[in-house]
Order: sequence, then C-alpha cells, then structure tokens
Amino acid sequence: MVFRIFQSLIMICLCFAVVSAQNSPADQQRPLTGFDRQSSDRQRALEKQFDSFLKRDELRDWMKRLSARPHHLGSPYGKENAEFIASLFRSWGFATEIERFDVLFPTPKTRVVEMTSPQKFTAKLAEPVLQDDATSGQKDEQLPVYNAYSINGDVTAQLVYVNYGIPQDYEELERRGIDVKGRIVIARYGGSWRGIKPKVAAEHGAIGCLIYSDPRNDGYYQGDIYPKGAWRNEDGAQRGSVADMPLYPGDPLTPGVGATPNAQRLQISEAPTLTKIPVLPISYSDALPLLRAMAGPVAPDAWRGALPITYHIGPGPATVHLKAEFDFKIVPAYDVIARLTGNERPDEWVIRGNHHDAWVNGAEDPVSGQVAMLEEARAVSQLAKNGWRPKRTIIYCAWDGEEPGLLGSTEWAEAHGDDLIKNAVAYINSDGNERGFLNAGGSHTLERFINEVARDVVDPEKEIPVSDRQRARRILNGSPEEMREARERADLRIAALGSGSDYTPFLQHLGISTLNLGYGGEGEADGVYHSIYDSFDHYTRFVDPTFDYGVALAKTAGRAVLRFADADYLPLTFSNFAETVGRYVGEVMKLASDERETILEKNRRISDKTFEAAADPTKPFVAPKPEAPAPFLNFAPLQNALTRLQESTQRYDTAMRDPASAVRLQSRDVQRSLDSALNKVEHAMTSESGLPRRSWFKHEIYAPGFYTGYGVKTLPAIREALEQHDWPEATDQIEVVARTLDNTAAQIDQATAILKGQ
Amino acid sequence: MVFRIFQSLIMICLCFAVVSAQNSPADQQRPLTGFDRQSSDRQRALEKQFDSFLKRDELRDWMKRLSARPHHLGSPYGKENAEFIASLFRSWGFATEIERFDVLFPTPKTRVVEMTSPQKFTAKLAEPVLQDDATSGQKDEQLPVYNAYSINGDVTAQLVYVNYGIPQDYEELERRGIDVKGRIVIARYGGSWRGIKPKVAAEHGAIGCLIYSDPRNDGYYQGDIYPKGAWRNEDGAQRGSVADMPLYPGDPLTPGVGATPNAQRLQISEAPTLTKIPVLPISYSDALPLLRAMAGPVAPDAWRGALPITYHIGPGPATVHLKAEFDFKIVPAYDVIARLTGNERPDEWVIRGNHHDAWVNGAEDPVSGQVAMLEEARAVSQLAKNGWRPKRTIIYCAWDGEEPGLLGSTEWAEAHGDDLIKNAVAYINSDGNERGFLNAGGSHTLERFINEVARDVVDPEKEIPVSDRQRARRILNGSPEEMREARERADLRIAALGSGSDYTPFLQHLGISTLNLGYGGEGEADGVYHSIYDSFDHYTRFVDPTFDYGVALAKTAGRAVLRFADADYLPLTFSNFAETVGRYVGEVMKLASDERETILEKNRRISDKTFEAAADPTKPFVAPKPEAPAPFLNFAPLQNALTRLQESTQRYDTAMRDPASAVRLQSRDVQRSLDSALNKVEHAMTSESGLPRRSWFKHEIYAPGFYTGYGVKTLPAIREALEQHDWPEATDQIEVVARTLDNTAAQIDQATAILKGQ
Repeated sequence: MVFRIFQSLIMICLCFAVVSAQNSPADQQRPLTGFDRQSSDRQRALEKQFDSFLKRDELRDWMKRLSARPHHLGSPYGKENAEFIASLFRSWGFATEIERFDVLFPTPKTRVVEMTSPQKFTAKLAEPVLQDDATSGQKDEQLPVYNAYSINGDVTAQLVYVNYGIPQDYEELERRGIDVKGRIVIARYGGSWRGIKPKVAAEHGAIGCLIYSDPRNDGYYQGDIYPKGAWRNEDGAQRGSVADMPLYPGDPLTPGVGATPNAQRLQISEAPTLTKIPVLPISYSDALPLLRAMAGPVAPDAWRGALPITYHIGPGPATVHLKAEFDFKIVPAYDVIARLTGNERPDEWVIRGNHHDAWVNGAEDPVSGQVAMLEEARAVSQLAKNGWRPKRTIIYCAWDGEEPGLLGSTEWAEAHGDDLIKNAVAYINSDGNERGFLNAGGSHTLERFINEVARDVVDPEKEIPVSDRQRARRILNGSPEEMREARERADLRIAALGSGSDYTPFLQHLGISTLNLGYGGEGEADGVYHSIYDSFDHYTRFVDPTFDYGVALAKTAGRAVLRFADADYLPLTFSNFAETVGRYVGEVMKLASDERETILEKNRRISDKTFEAAADPTKPFVAPKPEAPAPFLNFAPLQNALTRLQESTQRYDTAMRDPASAVRLQSRDVQRSLDSALNKVEHAMTSESGLPRRSWFKHEIYAPGFYTGYGVKTLPAIREALEQHDWPEATDQIEVVARTLDNTAAQIDQATAILKGQ
Repeated sequence: MVFRIFQSLIMICLCFAVVSAQNSPADQQRPLTGFDRQSSDRQRALEKQFDSFLKRDELRDWMKRLSARPHHLGSPYGKENAEFIASLFRSWGFATEIERFDVLFPTPKTRVVEMTSPQKFTAKLAEPVLQDDATSGQKDEQLPVYNAYSINGDVTAQLVYVNYGIPQDYEELERRGIDVKGRIVIARYGGSWRGIKPKVAAEHGAIGCLIYSDPRNDGYYQGDIYPKGAWRNEDGAQRGSVADMPLYPGDPLTPGVGATPNAQRLQISEAPTLTKIPVLPISYSDALPLLRAMAGPVAPDAWRGALPITYHIGPGPATVHLKAEFDFKIVPAYDVIARLTGNERPDEWVIRGNHHDAWVNGAEDPVSGQVAMLEEARAVSQLAKNGWRPKRTIIYCAWDGEEPGLLGSTEWAEAHGDDLIKNAVAYINSDGNERGFLNAGGSHTLERFINEVARDVVDPEKEIPVSDRQRARRILNGSPEEMREARERADLRIAALGSGSDYTPFLQHLGISTLNLGYGGEGEADGVYHSIYDSFDHYTRFVDPTFDYGVALAKTAGRAVLRFADADYLPLTFSNFAETVGRYVGEVMKLASDERETILEKNRRISDKTFEAAADPTKPFVAPKPEAPAPFLNFAPLQNALTRLQESTQRYDTAMRDPASAVRLQSRDVQRSLDSALNKVEHAMTSESGLPRRSWFKHEIYAPGFYTGYGVKTLPAIREALEQHDWPEATDQIEVVARTLDNTAAQIDQATAILKGQ
C-alpha cells in the first residue's frame, strides 16, 4: 500500500556513508562490509555485470501488462498476474511456486452516504471515467470506493468534524464541550494511518465514520488535478484498509498462524481487528455539501482544509445517513515464491519481496516496485546463467493481499515462522517507486550496509551517487542537526520502520533484519493513491516516465540482495545500532520529563484559573481536568543495559579490526559460525510476550504506533506507556526493554567470541 | 487606520506589573510612579470618580452619529463630524479650535482591471449593498475601492503571482527564474504593510500592481462571511494608502513642514512617496478568475491561499489590463484641538489623540476609539466642573486624514514641532477598539507607568485587572520565554511601535514619549477593515456590542492622561528601557552573526553544488549567486554605550530611592526642574540627521521597517543595514546609535543631579 502520511511527509530517508561529495577511487577500493578485499573486488565486478543486464523497457512492458486490469486480492486478474509473475520466475530458472492462503476479504454490497437535513444530498461515491486515462473505464472489475474491514452498519446521526480524528483532536473537541457520542464523525485523510480514525472515533462513542480527502492534503491545493495534473480530482477517493493493524496485520481470522485450509479461525464477530463502527471514504466533492452544512464553533486554524468554506466543527445541523454492508467472504491470496538456492549456505535465506495486488490498477502501488524487482530477478538469473551462484539462497516473493492489510506476507511469515527465524538472514522490501531520492528504512544493524550500497548506485538524473543526492537534500531541508549530520556523520541515518508495507511481519513479528527501499520525492503519485487513476497513463506522465528510477531501484535492491547472498559473513554492524538505541533511550527519558512538566504546568494553569481568565466568554470553553502529578521513573536499568550494549558493540568492532580475525575468517566454518551468531542478533531484540496488549508485535525497538498506525514508535512499550501516562506500565517495560538489550548484547558477545576463536 | 498584519498577528501586547493574580489592598496602597503616597491616594480617589462618570450609551449614540455617513478626508460628512466633535469639546468647556491643513488627496476617476487573455474578464471593483447593513447603500458618498497615492497608469501585461510581494518572495521567484520586469504583479494582502508591495514590485521592474484579499488571510477561511458572520465576503476589498510611508508620512507634498496655506510644496511629479507604478486593490471574487488562469510553476506551500484552485506563479498566460487615473486634488484636513489648561504647569502638555476620518463609515476604524476618547474627555470635563484642575495642560486631538497616511497628525506635529519638542510631555494614542485584551505599545520609559495603569483597570468580562487577563493569555499562547516572563517579570513587556497610527510623528519624528492603547483579540473587525461594511451594524453585532470595551479604553487612556496631568513629577522610569535596549543590542549582534553564518552556508552550498544535486531537473531552478563573506563588526561602541546607559539608570533609581530625594521633591521648583530634565530623555534618543535615506525618522530606537511598513525595526539604522548586508553602513550606524545612547544617559544623569540637589 506504500503507506503515505501526507501531512508530515517523513523525510528521514536513506542517509549515507560518504562524507566527501566525490566517490573517490580509494572509496571504491575499500572492502565492503562482510567481504575481504579480494571478495569485495569480485563482488563489485559482479555488480557491474548485473547493472549491464538491466533494461528499462522491460519495466515499462511489464507495468503495462500487470496494470492492464484491476487486480485486487481475490480478483481474476490478480490471479492472472500471480501466474504471469510465476511464469517469469520459472522462465528465469527460479524454483517457483504459488503459495495460497485463504483470507477474509470483505467487499461492499451496499454503500450509502446521504445528508437528510438541513438539505438533502446523496454522495456519488464514484470516480468518473476519464478520456485521458485508458483504464479508468473498467467499471466491471473495479472495487468501489470503500474501506476494507469496516463492519456492517446503518446509522443516521448528526455529523461532527474531527479534523484528522487522532486523540489530540478529541482533546480540542473536549475543550469546546463537543461530544461525538451517538454521532457520526467526518475526518480528513492524513495525520495518521486511516485505520486509527474509526478506532479513536469508536473509543469516544461515535457510531459511524466518514473519511474524506481534503484538497488541502490531497487535491488542488497540492497541484493541478488529474488529468490536467497529477493530483486528486474532486471525485477521487482513497480506498484502503481500516483494520486495527497496530493490533496485528494479516488475516483478521487467523492471528499468529498461517491462513491455511486447516487453520483454526475466529468467528467474524470475534475478530478484534475489524472496526467497531461502519466506515466509508468519500471524495471532496461528496464532502463539500456536508461540511458546508455544519454549524457550531469554527474549527481551529490547524483543522481547516482547502475547501472554499468556513470549517465548522458541529455537531450538525448536518445529519447524515451512513449505510455500509459488506460481503464477508473468504478469498484465496496467491503469493509467488521463487528460489535460487545458494551453493555454499543454502540454509541461509535472503528474502526479497514486493506485493503484486493493488486496490485497482495500481501502476505505482505496487506495480512500479514489482517490475523493478522482476527486472532485478531477471538480471540475477542472467548472472546465474553466466555461471555465478550465490553463496546463500535467494528467495523472491511477490505478495498478494498487501493492500487490505499485509495479508500475503503476514500469512506466509506466520506459516513459516520457525523456519524463517532460523534461516532468514534478511528481508528486503520495496513497494511503489517514483522519481527522486532513495528512501531507506530498516534495522540499524544494516545502516552501514545500505549506506555502502547507496554510495555505489548512480542517480540517473544527476550522475552522482544516490547517497550524495539524498545528502544534498537533507542539507537543504533538514533541521540544523540533520544538516550537520548530513555533512559530518560517516553514515547518514536510516529511518526506523513503523508499518505500511510487507516488512512488518518479518521485522516486528519474527525479528529478522529488514530493509525497506524505494525512490521518491519527485514523482507525483500521492494524488492517485488507492484510486482508479493510479494507472499506466498516470505513471508514465507524472511518476517516472522513463523508468530510470525503476532501474535505480533494481540496482539498489539488487546490490543489497547480491551482497547479502555473497558476503563472506553477514554484513551486520552494531555501532550505529547502539548509537541509535542510545538516542531512543535519550528520547524516552526526555519524554518522561516533558510529560511530567506538562502535567505540572497544566495543573498550575487550572489552579491559577489561567484558562478562565483568557477564554472568550462568547465561545464555549471547558477547562481541562487536573491530573495526578507524574512520578520520577527509574531509567537506570535501561541506561545500564545500553551501556552493556555499547560495550559489546565496541568489543565486536575491536575484534573485527584484529588482523587475527581476518585470518580466522578465511575459514568457511568460522564464517558459517559467525553467520549463525550474527543472525540471532535481531531476533534477540524481540520478546516472546510481545508488546503490552498486542503480543503479535514482538520487536522491542520498532513498532507501528498504537495511535499512529504507520508512524513508527521506537522503544514502543516504554514510549507508549509514557504517552498514555501509565507510569507503572512504563516502569515494567523499562525492565523488559533492558532485558532485551541485554540479550542483544549477549548475542553480539557470542559473535565476538567466534571472531576471537573462543 | 489601525494597521493590522493578518498573517503574523503580533501578540506582543500589554504586559503587566503584577505577579500575583490578586490585586491585594497592599498593592492598591503602593504609591504611583510620579506621586508620593498622599498625592497617589488623591489620584486614585479622583480616578474612582472619573470611572463613575463613564456611560457606555453615549459611546453607542456617538458611534451611530459619527458613522452614519461616509466621512473620509475631504468629504462633507467628515467636515460635519469635525464640527460635531468640536462642538462637544466646547460644550464641555475645552478651549477648542479646528486647525486646517491643505493636503494632497487623490481619489479615483478611472479604475479598470480586466483580463484580456486567455479569457475575457472584467473585475467588478465594487462592494455590493447588503440588506443587513443599513449604511452599505450610501453609494453616492462612498469612496470606491482604491489605493491612495498610486500614480496614474494604463498598462497591459502578463501577471505574476508574488505572494505577499515582500523582498524574500522575489528571492523565491529568482530561484525559479521568474522575472517581473515589464509585467503586472498580483500580491495578496498581508505579510507586510500594503505600501511595501508596489514599492518592491517597482524596484524589481514591474509595471503595475494588483493587491487582493485572499480568503486564507481575510475571508471564509477565517470565519463566516458578512453578513452571516463577521468576515470579508467575496466582493469585499480593502482600501488603503500605498504611499511610501517608511520614507515619511503625512502630506506627500510637504515633508517635514505643516501643510499650511503658505507652505512650500513639491510638484506632484517630484513627490517621492507616491508609488512608481499604478496600483489597485481587488476582492477575491475579482482575483479568482485571474489566478485560475495562471500557469507556470506551482506556488510554494507558504504562498498558497484558500481559493479553490492550484496557485501558479506564472508569468501569465493571464494577461491583464490595469488602468488607474486619479484626481490629484488638494483637500482640507480638519484637526479638532481641545485644551484644558493646567493650573500649575500649563506649559507641559499631555496630548491625547485618535483620528476621526474613515475610509468609509468606519465604525470600528476609527469611530470606536474616537467615541471612547470623547467619553473620556467628557468625564475629565466633569471632574473639572466639580472643581478639579490638572497640574499640566491636557490637549485632546481628533485627527483628520489618518487613513491616507497620518496626514492630520503629521501636519500638526510638523507645524508645531518646536513647541511640541519643548512642551509635550507625552502623546497617548488610540484608534479602533474591540472586545478583548489590552494591547499597549510605546516608549519603554513608560512601560512601568502603563503597567500600573493596567493593574487598576478591571476587565468588563472577567472582573479581574486587564493586566491579569493579558498575562493569562501570554501564559497560554506565548513562547516559553514569554510564558516565563508573564509569570515572573515584575512588568510585563510592551510592544515597540512601528507605524500604523497617529503616534508616528510624535514618537519617531519629534521624540516625544508615546503610548498606543487599544483593546482587541475577541472582536472580529479584521474582515471589514477599510471596507463599506465597517459599519455600526457590523460593530454592534461582532466587535463590541455592549461598548464595555469602549468604556474600558476610556478608563485606561483616561487614567494615563490624568496621571500624566497630575503627577508630582513625570512618571518616566528607565530601568525597563535600559534592559529593553540591552535586548535590542543582543538581537542586532546575533543578527550580524546569523547573517555571517547564512552567507557562509549559502556560499558553501553553491561551491558544493548542493542546490544542483537536490533540484528536480523537470522544474526550473536557478541557484543563488555567491556573496562576499561578511566581516566581523565592531559592536564595542554600542556595548560600551549600553553599559553607560545602564549605569545612569541605576544611579537614577538609587537617587530616587534616597529619602532625601523625597524631601527635595516636596518642592514644586524641584518637581518642575525634574520634569524639564525628564522630558528631554526621549528626545535625546533622536538624532538630527535621522535614519539613513529617510531623515524624517529621527528616533534611533524605534522606526517602521523600510521593507515592513508597519512592522517595527528597533535600532533601525543598525538592524536594516545588517539586513541589507551593508557592512560599512552598519559600522557607521553603530557609532551613531552609541552616541545617541550616550546622549540619553547624559540626560538621565541630569535628572539624577536634580534629584540629588546638585
């Protein structure tokens, strides 16, 4: 789904290893992590060959083929695409199978949004056919505009405008004495993942939820609208899942296990990730009459969009009838799994994935990433045809059912969990791809590795390393701290991963080292996200017309796969990881302190009657309630564990620099043992019990936020307890995370012992 | 004109002396500055009586009378109003005269704005009559929508959208390779005073200028539009002066001298404050077709307004014919001057003013302030009728011609400049007034004084001191530093004055201690500013329906007048002033350092090709040019002068605390001598040569910005040289300001010597 946050477009991207703007020959000669000088030179020669096989015309042809018809989960063309992709892999010599899972996938039977008073208005709920877009007329096969995993509902009530519908928006409502209980909320897309909106609305007692695309975030405010420009037109609307993904992704009926024929399934009525209230998405032309009919307080400045109206909060008088009925059927999801078995360490798996299902035609999301992966795989197969074999096994995966909630990847990861924990050495993901800058996120044990990759890929527009281009962007647009680091830090930072694409089950459920890669920032695909207009026509006009960045993605992810497959030992490093965890520890300690200060200040304002003194008596205002002061918490266990982690990391680095290690690493047995130890490090960051109230999420460093959805929360168990002012839980989780860091340090120590021959 | 900056509504307001929220009896007993305990108690008793005379119904009746018909400069009803106001003052026993000046005041003969391609469109340039607004139909007497002091012009050219049209907007254009030379710019209101827009456009070679009210700043985005709500409707437009007021205000033909019959006048063609290109203001319904017809790059995010379009910069294809012809006639300005002569120090004048002319009916601007001043004067006359006489002379002034450019006040101040420098002890100004919070700006030698006043005025909505209410607002909305100060600093800060009302000639040309007072923040008058809808109907629905804040203004300014008139010695204090100047010195030193860093960073980015690396090759981008590095400047003269000022201030405070001083101050001769010394302090802050390139502005601490118009620049000669990267001028002006601070310190030392009996 290439989860996007329109409002706060996260720019923390791939950041790079080189300080000089030039890629000097000396740099080129520097051995790659995981390789010695000799094997490094061989690898770079191999990559040169690999690059020479990549042809952008194939990306174009495959995109045309794969996006020719709607191909959502369960659709006929989705199955055809899976078979086509499988046939390609087979033709290239991969051992290929289509693995099927049977998953819950509701599609709409009835969708009604109508205003019953003060005026009558019936929402169109439809995206029109455009002459300039060849596939927009495929009505018979298109899924209508809807949000998957909404429950059925038929409700009529006054509307309340809730801005993005995130928790702090409800605090603003409370200050104005406005309650959503028994009412229908209308929220705009943005500010959080969409599934958060009905979840928080239901927590506050709302009985229905509309989500609309405001032109401020996603329409004419951003740029000319389609087909004149790239942006969402007045009837465009955003499909998407609203399952409670932060609880668990994948099939709502089979949490934690693969949705195989015999899997034990929950009843639909028991499935906790379905919404509690009915939800429908609408376009801004459908939203405008509703919002125009609102009264009540004028919305605060930050809530106002770009419709030509005064935004009022309500409640009402606009009263809306919302009816949504779905066909809750079980459909097959077809994952294409293609293997190239390693010749030296076949039981070590480098997994590379991109989904193939779309909401409609999905040229950008996901086909642009899929075709880059296909071309990458074809070039890998060419290498193999020329006699090269990878040391480790490479597995290419084309996932089905990502859009409704990472179904194909999650069910596969759950079905093969034990094997994956044992054998998978890395998961490398991509999704939609655009013209622009390399964005990378993932495990910080791979930060140095992906920096090395990015230094060796040349930007097609600028003919400089893609790392240098990203670095320039951060110098121009970053905070002073980011700017300084972009110039001075050896490796520029990669983003921590929340959720929003198929990496989640691998990283956060299984604890496998993960990277997510993609280019973007210059293509303009946001405006057709999850609409019928995400088409070949749109992509080739506005997103990456030459497919040069598709080839750049193939070079980038291809290098990552090849280096992981061929390295003498796994190219993980730990100093960046330890430093990053140190920053996270600093952040949560500051958060605890800030929250304590915030409570004190709030309570003082309440007791001083500061709110009352300043409030306009002609406008409703309800002062907040006082709150018990926050205690000081004991962060010492976390600080001590961090210190141990840093010490372990230093010992590993020292051992790695020891010439004796290089000698020992000539031995394949030592390499294999080291791999085995290194490959347990990321898993050591998980806890078996998982995060509080969402045990599916086992990684203690990275998780999607319970109230952000895609947005990452690092050290999530501690951070979210602090955010919720649950001090006892925060104290408990400090201990849990400290133990996890200790386990991680111990695992690094094992690797160090092997290096030292102990 | 009650100059407003919609975008960055300056909240630096009146800030207050009391730390406790309660007005304890002990506080009440504390003697007022300028009084001893006994005279202080008498004064407070007098003020109690004064308050009891104030009747809000009179404010309403007078507003109804004064705003009944359009009364701009030169209009029949304007003259009637002046005569009515004079008759009131006479009836109350003031020695009253109407002083006439003959000033240049162009009014429109021809106004045409039409798009000639790609479509035909003719702008209405008219505000419609509204049923709900009784005076909106007085077409015969209304000035049409126009900008005063535009030159005549008849131009046809492509449009360029320039955002607010301030210098940094032209830097953005330059980055995109867009030149306004030979083109017509369209700028939105806001971001600076309107007169800056044609000035900067002409500097860049534009041949015409349209200024429109974007609904983002001034229309439905802000709130419901008139008459449903208070805000500007689609046909509303903002009249206003576009003379180059930062050069000098007042009659363009008589800079520096009163526009008396025999004054030497410039030719119109020589008048430097007229615009260089024709200008017209338009409504957003007139602007929409023009902006919709633009192409070229999409405007940067910060440039986009709330019209339902994608904002493009151009140039063109929209091509516009702009024709403006004016009747450049000389009209009479009628200032009403009313005196109540002091019985002890008649040659010390406390001057209180508010203009009476409006752009149209002007209920808020200026009648709301005018009627508060009238009621204040009536209550003062009641005190006099009961036997009280002020020690010093009180002069009430109702100015004409403020709207076109502070004409009545400037000409009067210029005509009587020598007497005023000698005799005026303070000028206290007001203008439009609204429901809300007390905003005060002015000389920091009066910061403590006005804090004491604000502590003694009770807010009509909250029944707490108006100081406490402002303090609460700053705690809730201020920066962390402002919040801390609002709680902890004995006197909360008052704003430095730029320009925008009649205080400018008194403070910045003559160097007279000045205050500007008004309530606001809860009334909603912005949306009818300078339109036909600034009417009695609008004011009494949306701005201050009960006139309670009109009475509050009368209490506030009345106290200021009475205390200044009655004080044993002038209530100036210097420690807040010296501390404030210390902040300004810190700011300009930081500015020099920041500009130096900015140039270094820019040059580095240029030489590193950072801009090129990040730029999107499909979009026009021109990298900035390198600039000579900035030298380090010698701020020592300024720092040394500041230290001397602080020492003088401390000596004055020490002397004032000495019981021997109190004894000496029993003598009227000593009081009079002290007054004489104190009254020269503000004038010592001026330099005879004035600011570089605008010698009319003589105050070295406060001036309106050359490129902001109303927005203040403190230590303007240094600050603006630094902003313009004119390092030699900055160095020279450091010396000038240092000498000015030395003169100020020397003048304070004179006062100290008198206190000490030396």
